[in-house]
Amino acid sequence: MIYFDNAATTAPYPEVLQTYQEVASKLMGNPSSLHDLGVQAKRLLEASRQQVASLLGKSAEEIFFTSGGTESDNWAIKGLAFEKAVYGKHLIVSAIEHPAVKESAKWLQAQGFDVDLAPVTKHGFVDLEALENLLRPDTILVSVMAVNNEIGAIQPIKAIAQLLENRPTIAFHVDAVQAIGKLPIADILPQRVDFASFSSHKFHGVRGVGFLYKKQGKKISPLLTGGGQEANLRSTTENLPGIAATAKALRLTLEQVDQPAQMQELRDYLLEELASFPDVTVFSGRENFAPNIVTFGLKGLRGEVLVHALEEEGIYVSTTSACSSKAGKPAGTLLAMGFPLDLAQTAVRVSFDGENQLSQVEAFVGAFKQIYQQTRKVRV
Amino acid sequence: MIYFDNAATTAPYPEVLQTYQEVASKLMGNPSSLHDLGVQAKRLLEASRQQVASLLGKSAEEIFFTSGGTESDNWAIKGLAFEKAVYGKHLIVSAIEHPAVKESAKWLQAQGFDVDLAPVTKHGFVDLEALENLLRPDTILVSVMAVNNEIGAIQPIKAIAQLLENRPTIAFHVDAVQAIGKLPIADILPQRVDFASFSSHKFHGVRGVGFLYKKQGKKISPLLTGGGQEANLRSTTENLPGIAATAKALRLTLEQVDQPAQMQELRDYLLEELASFPDVTVFSGRENFAPNIVTFGLKGLRGEVLVHALEEEGIYVSTTSACSSKAGKPAGTLLAMGFPLDLAQTAVRVSFDGENQLSQVEAFVGAFKQIYQQTRKVRV
Repeated sequence: MIYFDNAATTAPYPEVLQTYQEVASKLMGNPSSLHDLGVQAKRLLEASRQQVASLLGKSAEEIFFTSGGTESDNWAIKGLAFEKAVYGKHLIVSAIEHPAVKESAKWLQAQGFDVDLAPVTKHGFVDLEALENLLRPDTILVSVMAVNNEIGAIQPIKAIAQLLENRPTIAFHVDAVQAIGKLPIADILPQRVDFASFSSHKFHGVRGVGFLYKKQGKKISPLLTGGGQEANLRSTTENLPGIAATAKALRLTLEQVDQPAQMQELRDYLLEELASFPDVTVFSGRENFAPNIVTFGLKGLRGEVLVHALEEEGIYVSTTSACSSKAGKPAGTLLAMGFPLDLAQTAVRVSFDGENQLSQVEAFVGAFKQIYQQTRKVRV
Repeated sequence: MIYFDNAATTAPYPEVLQTYQEVASKLMGNPSSLHDLGVQAKRLLEASRQQVASLLGKSAEEIFFTSGGTESDNWAIKGLAFEKAVYGKHLIVSAIEHPAVKESAKWLQAQGFDVDLAPVTKHGFVDLEALENLLRPDTILVSVMAVNNEIGAIQPIKAIAQLLENRPTIAFHVDAVQAIGKLPIADILPQRVDFASFSSHKFHGVRGVGFLYKKQGKKISPLLTGGGQEANLRSTTENLPGIAATAKALRLTLEQVDQPAQMQELRDYLLEELASFPDVTVFSGRENFAPNIVTFGLKGLRGEVLVHALEEEGIYVSTTSACSSKAGKPAGTLLAMGFPLDLAQTAVRVSFDGENQLSQVEAFVGAFKQIYQQTRKVRV
């Protein structure tokens, strides 16, 4: 099996599952309990929070564990909107955000908020000038992802940070789900970023766990109210085994500092090979693109057909994002970039992790060459 | 160690952790992915949903997996409120609900909704007449828990169901977190119940997983918007290992049909023993009380002092709910029942599971007798 769908989900590291298992079987206390079992659990909880914070160069009070990237995004967008509604009701999210951000903004629209989508250039990057033109006195939030999940375009987070430098009333949220472990932390979390979302299962952690970075002093309404956990901002009995496993996964991921370069080597090899197929449209690029994602299409062949043809050869890729692929929707990012629908529908995404090998990419190219030949007639 | 804090959290069954581990290490696909790894994951997801549904006598389309009891409660309360706001903005929750329900209602109050707290009798049961008097033409939701988490009082769910029988525009939500595995399903989920919340770690499942029962046809706004998972009502990549583990935990729990009677034996023994201590106030009871909870206080001794004294003997109990104990808040339930603050502050909760033994309760009584004697002076 060749698994090239790491942007959809990654396999948890064995050490991560071991941590989960150990904590779940040995530390059964509820971190909110007064007794020693609770105290032990609370201690590990805070050690995990500290580890995540240190790895990001932030402080522990700025890390809030959630149930995943989607909750982190929903919380940041909706929580900020409800918190700041009295000051303004205008939000800006980029046109190529993950549905967790985009649909949250849409949901707020139905509740009376005003939402603008910041457009992207034809290459897939948020248009800074257009974004600046959208800013209003009642703008309370700008949300832009660090790495686009569908084509891997690295968004100009630092430039946006600069744009917002003298506009302190606007909160800046970054969906960092696809960026962590692929870009340097400094490029994802410049000081001006107020909120950032992370998902454990995208960096070899576990499902059902994520976290939100919230800059100290920034206010946000809770999405989950109740027993008052997570500094009264995110109630629910803490998923301690999952949280400890997540801290470990993040450490293991960030320790492997050579991985981005390794992935980039695979990416560049694949981009070079794909350039030799006349009917291929490559949607991703080299400069300012994540090292692990190559999205391309074969003219006249719908993405899902190519996904299944590759699957027959034991190679796993996806159409666009996993979250949209079941619905059969074309990549929203490609449409926002101005590609016509029929071309957007051809897209498949190849996404590497640090353990993929060049030989696997060679096997991929071999399999693709065959499919390319075999489908020549139906594609005409 | 004698663990009598099962209402705070239970130890996961070893078989449950085994399922988690197996699924996490062997089924790594994202259920939303088109390829075969996704299909396999999706199949197990739906089998787990079917199993949970069958165990509750419901259909699979009515079960929605969440991150726990708190999210289930938040979603039911807030999701219903946002969905039905155009028809009415009045909600009724009982005065003794878990903070996940009560704080959700309070949060909605700040957003312009109108909330009434249904009072309870001095014995800790929702007052049906008072509840009926609170009903209004613009009431959209009544939320009452099946078993109170602080004293174990079984709420009159069937009677409330009857009260609401001819009021189809009012949604009826039941927080079933403490009830499952202790009461017959028919007492928790009569047909009139529209929504019910469950938490995996309360029945020997895993942290970070719960589910919401939503009666077919009932509408609710999502709390987590995004990729469209869970029939577009609860977005996020599904926590498949946790979900499969939860289905297993529920099956193992409900298969042990003798457990409620076993727990009740321990409870009744403890109640009998406690009756012989003149300075003890027992807040729980026998009739219409859950088989696993005994809450009592030692006059003049704050609950946390008793918790720590018992801990020295290797016995783990809690003050009130785990979620409130860190905040040092007295049991809200006892205050709602009309107990004075100083008495409410003495409360400790003993909560059994099916594996606790009579010998452990005897040991508890022995330890308590000693503490009772030793604290006689400080209690005066």
